[in-house]
Amino acid sequence: MKRKATVLVAGSWGTALAAVLADNHYEVTIWARNPVQVEEINNKHTNSKFLKGAVLPDSIQATTEIEEALLDASIVLFAAPSSAMREVAKQAAPFISPEALCIHATKGFESGSFKRMTTVLAEELKGDPNRLVVLSGPSHAEEVVRRQPTTVVVASLSQEAAERAQDAFITPYFRVYTNMDVVGVEVAGAIKNIIALGAGLTDGLGFGDNAKAALLTRGLAEISRLGIAMGANPLTFAGLAGVGDLVVTCTSKHSRNWRAGSMLAEGLPLADVLTQMGMVVEGVRTTSAAHELSIQYEVEMPITEQLYQVLFENKPPRQAVESLMGRGRTHEMEEDAGSWGLHQS
Amino acid sequence: MKRKATVLVAGSWGTALAAVLADNHYEVTIWARNPVQVEEINNKHTNSKFLKGAVLPDSIQATTEIEEALLDASIVLFAAPSSAMREVAKQAAPFISPEALCIHATKGFESGSFKRMTTVLAEELKGDPNRLVVLSGPSHAEEVVRRQPTTVVVASLSQEAAERAQDAFITPYFRVYTNMDVVGVEVAGAIKNIIALGAGLTDGLGFGDNAKAALLTRGLAEISRLGIAMGANPLTFAGLAGVGDLVVTCTSKHSRNWRAGSMLAEGLPLADVLTQMGMVVEGVRTTSAAHELSIQYEVEMPITEQLYQVLFENKPPRQAVESLMGRGRTHEMEEDAGSWGLHQS
Repeated sequence: MKRKATVLVAGSWGTALAAVLADNHYEVTIWARNPVQVEEINNKHTNSKFLKGAVLPDSIQATTEIEEALLDASIVLFAAPSSAMREVAKQAAPFISPEALCIHATKGFESGSFKRMTTVLAEELKGDPNRLVVLSGPSHAEEVVRRQPTTVVVASLSQEAAERAQDAFITPYFRVYTNMDVVGVEVAGAIKNIIALGAGLTDGLGFGDNAKAALLTRGLAEISRLGIAMGANPLTFAGLAGVGDLVVTCTSKHSRNWRAGSMLAEGLPLADVLTQMGMVVEGVRTTSAAHELSIQYEVEMPITEQLYQVLFENKPPRQAVESLMGRGRTHEMEEDAGSWGLHQS
Repeated sequence: MKRKATVLVAGSWGTALAAVLADNHYEVTIWARNPVQVEEINNKHTNSKFLKGAVLPDSIQATTEIEEALLDASIVLFAAPSSAMREVAKQAAPFISPEALCIHATKGFESGSFKRMTTVLAEELKGDPNRLVVLSGPSHAEEVVRRQPTTVVVASLSQEAAERAQDAFITPYFRVYTNMDVVGVEVAGAIKNIIALGAGLTDGLGFGDNAKAALLTRGLAEISRLGIAMGANPLTFAGLAGVGDLVVTCTSKHSRNWRAGSMLAEGLPLADVLTQMGMVVEGVRTTSAAHELSIQYEVEMPITEQLYQVLFENKPPRQAVESLMGRGRTHEMEEDAGSWGLHQS
């Protein structure tokens, strides 16, 4: 097969990963709906709305025609928002070769169905579901496109597919680890956006680093509990897609979820926050999904619960944080040992 | 026994914890060697060298006389630097009641012997070693003394001792969890200072948040490996004393270890960095200790090893970071699954 990769669609993460593939000597075509954006990528080699100030490799092409974009692709990278994933996959399906490796880099669940992204792709794409791969980890697009050192994980049910994805992306500045835990990597990547919203909220309320570290630690525990209930490997949450991505998302001002949380703390209603952001805030939708999943899998998720009340039931942010701090005296591991499947010494 | 607590010595963390005990209606005496500092605490209710701008509760007393300081104490809190712990314990031992609860809040190993702090205390203090408690977690002294929300862990071989420590410190802004894993809490608290040094180094070299998140994640893995080899419970590293403290130390400019790392990145020799800091940098000493322990327990610790070479063998910092990034293609969990005692699904 040709060393040709197609990226759907031209958001910040898709564009940054297109640049990695181009650096790795792939012929890369990005599919985007907006002709102005397509022209900008082809002529100026920039995507200024999504990656301000970054210059893309010259070889990257863009087109509004999905069939043309997918012609001869041996790698198809899905980087659509979670809400658009099914529709993009549906449109792309007829033009994807059955041998092509299908990778997604989207962090979230499908609205309404609360399905993971590989489940959505498996339902929409023809061919072996083992060829599906999820790419995740601590990776701000803004840094990747500047070739700053970055490490990610690629997970697949098939070791061979994971290794093909590793080969496609690995470059001196982009280190790729393989992993077999698709469920864990997808759950960790999605739910950390909730904790990032919460971190923006506590920072916005003027709490300090100690409080944020506590939120992050307890957040990691509740992500792990849900993931394990859904069949994930506990170790994934201690790895790059778990704690690594959580840290980078919660402590960096690049994060949209963090910014949305800090605006909520200032008293802005959710609708206004979303309007002002102008881009997708995955953490908001993910809060609904995780809230529903915590009920379905009978897992206690106190941080998710409080954020759900702030976002959708008008609970004042300060009151939500106080509810979290004010819980009873506990032994640290009481809540977690069971779900981690470990015995205490 | 009287509700009386003694704090040895008057560094930033000891002073902040003295304030928590005073808020919790303990009569608190701090022992310090420096008469000027003692006078400042008694008359101005400040400790400006260590906690700039903070005002202490009026009720806190200080003295240069150790016997007077320890009179009637039901709680003795050791917060000396790791290098001074044995000597402080030796001096204090004759004046500590056998019923007093002895808690330490020091993160590091003893130089030369590489012993944990509770081991040093058990050797120097009379009475039941089960009454020893370690207090640790994500807790900048600067925030605690301002009553910013903070969570910590108290670990002891005795559940009763841990609960007594929990009672002594718990306040609305200072949340205390109990834990039985003394080894894990002490190892995690000590070694995170190495990773913080490394974070200062990568930040100082101009690498971004992605690289720092990778360092933190791989750092957590190597801390866990050593801790588990020494007998710790793996869960501790996913908790407040593990990932929580690691995050707060690596992402905050309050951290001395981070600052020392960033100065090293600028090309300053170690001796100059230590002179400029003027305070103890635990991470430097801990790097020697962890390097020795990794050999003794046959545990692979690549980050510690690189930092050891930077600190003590003049390896250029950039070359050390490149050595870490440039390792072979790996499966994420290969190195860890065995040491965590978990089977992969």
